[in-house]
Amino acid sequence: MNFPDLPALAEPSLSARVRHALDHKTKPLGALGRIEALALQIALIQGVERPALRAPQLVVYAADHGLSRRGVSAFPREVTPQMVANMLAGGAAVSVLARQQGLALSIADCGVDAPLAEGAIDLRIAPGTADASAGPAMSLEQAGRALRNGMALVERLPGNALLLGEMGIGNTSAASLLMQRLTGLSLVDCVGRGTGLDDAGLARKLAVLEQALAANVAAQAPLELAASLGGFEILTMAGSVITAAAQRRVIVVDGFITTAAAALAQALCPGVLTACVFAHRSAEGPHALWLQGLGVRPLLDLDLRLGEGSGAALAWPLLTAACALLADMASFESAGVSNRD
Amino acid sequence: MNFPDLPALAEPSLSARVRHALDHKTKPLGALGRIEALALQIALIQGVERPALRAPQLVVYAADHGLSRRGVSAFPREVTPQMVANMLAGGAAVSVLARQQGLALSIADCGVDAPLAEGAIDLRIAPGTADASAGPAMSLEQAGRALRNGMALVERLPGNALLLGEMGIGNTSAASLLMQRLTGLSLVDCVGRGTGLDDAGLARKLAVLEQALAANVAAQAPLELAASLGGFEILTMAGSVITAAAQRRVIVVDGFITTAAAALAQALCPGVLTACVFAHRSAEGPHALWLQGLGVRPLLDLDLRLGEGSGAALAWPLLTAACALLADMASFESAGVSNRD
Repeated sequence: MNFPDLPALAEPSLSARVRHALDHKTKPLGALGRIEALALQIALIQGVERPALRAPQLVVYAADHGLSRRGVSAFPREVTPQMVANMLAGGAAVSVLARQQGLALSIADCGVDAPLAEGAIDLRIAPGTADASAGPAMSLEQAGRALRNGMALVERLPGNALLLGEMGIGNTSAASLLMQRLTGLSLVDCVGRGTGLDDAGLARKLAVLEQALAANVAAQAPLELAASLGGFEILTMAGSVITAAAQRRVIVVDGFITTAAAALAQALCPGVLTACVFAHRSAEGPHALWLQGLGVRPLLDLDLRLGEGSGAALAWPLLTAACALLADMASFESAGVSNRD
Repeated sequence: MNFPDLPALAEPSLSARVRHALDHKTKPLGALGRIEALALQIALIQGVERPALRAPQLVVYAADHGLSRRGVSAFPREVTPQMVANMLAGGAAVSVLARQQGLALSIADCGVDAPLAEGAIDLRIAPGTADASAGPAMSLEQAGRALRNGMALVERLPGNALLLGEMGIGNTSAASLLMQRLTGLSLVDCVGRGTGLDDAGLARKLAVLEQALAANVAAQAPLELAASLGGFEILTMAGSVITAAAQRRVIVVDGFITTAAAALAQALCPGVLTACVFAHRSAEGPHALWLQGLGVRPLLDLDLRLGEGSGAALAWPLLTAACALLADMASFESAGVSNRD
């Protein structure tokens, strides 16, 4: 597949100008801590000294997983379409938060095992992936189609910010498998309790995921890996990340599954991570380790493990605050405030 | 002094009802992590199952310090009135954030060494405290007046939430002195670089604060300690915390200096801390240790060390989100979503 060229974000003179502006605001040097780094990152993503966020889009990518028939989740498979309906009806956490924060919420059905819900965007590949513990979760053709769906979706979205969310019973399993193959860490370090497995459930999940790795050992290139291990929503999201980065949109990554999509996008199209703001460190065990491996530090650490984009929505006001501070704070000179000696 | 009775917040049956509501929302049990604990705390503060935040008030308590003539700060003393003017003109970080978050911003002049700024609330005790390294920073009468000013201020404020901010060159010194006396930790563990002291400046600050402790060794009761060590803004804020807690307002504590006010209020009127939400862990060295000693975990950890209430304003959307989630999320039953087994 061909991917778009990414803009060069590390523009030294722009970076110096933004740093200069931040350093002359009426505050001790660096006193806004990571909010200053965030303002600088957004400025570099947009390529302007005074970044502004317009019409932010929170997209929930939903799909089902063959693995969910293998007892890898604490919740039954039918919860995927039920939660899609709940999101569309406004009762899910992400619905409440999107409304509250002024985020446009879309639900992209990338392959839910139920009829298309009214109001969802139809990016369906199939009614759920195949069982990855018995072979590839999808074909390479399906994987390519999912990626292109995600890319095309972003082309149609207004605004300049994309917040990633997801829904799919079983998708921490797909994310764990991708983490193992992309990082080379041992599987046990890549697997968590998802929606709340007990010890026996966790052992069962690990055993099933060992089978999935063994069944797909031949896959090597990133797209092959992703096709083998799934899922449709992760592939579609990865495509969206690539196009959003190419279009200088700010991408807000939520928790473990959206990190899988961002890491896959980075493997397919190196450089996209510079456009990603990581919203939070999930309580899903392996997430902290993956973030560390990617060399990123998330904004929030609130023991969230819900997914849906809920952490991205909770972090969103920090991004708008960073832009407002960069745009609207006075300088020592303009405010007539004495600087330190 | 007499302090108002505090409401009993640990109401077991209300707590159980809120916990039940949270546990039946459409999400895995506990998946919203600390946001759930925050929703519960706000419900208990307000004494209702569905808390709501109205007309939040961010008050910046400003004053000067005798110690600022002793070279304890990287910034000169005249910055206090200059920053008050900047806040009133809308150019300070707290001005930008308050505007953005819909927080009403007031500046309470508790004793700035300059004429009262137009638009500031007059709670002035004196043009700065006396030099605490040579004796008490203020008289007991002044301390009592500052406390009562803070209490009366809250009586007049609308809404049900108070966000604490402060401005005062030298006030990390007063906060450090209070921390030392209230916690009993060694002074060196209670002192940080404030607005950006270098090593020599930090050594100078430590030496001056040693003198202040020695000059005020006789003070023992909390009000005596506070009068000896200052400052006017910290005492006034402590009074506000006490009345706000008595009136079941949610109190949002910002960084190191506002933590000093909250800790002082707790020493004067035990129980007020249950009404306090701690917004962030400051990069001012001793703050983390003090929070730990108080047994509280702040919401954000973003290396902020600006004060002004900037961290409280940045954390504010998490409080409104917590209330919205508790009020508006569907339950498994209402949304027709299958719960785990």
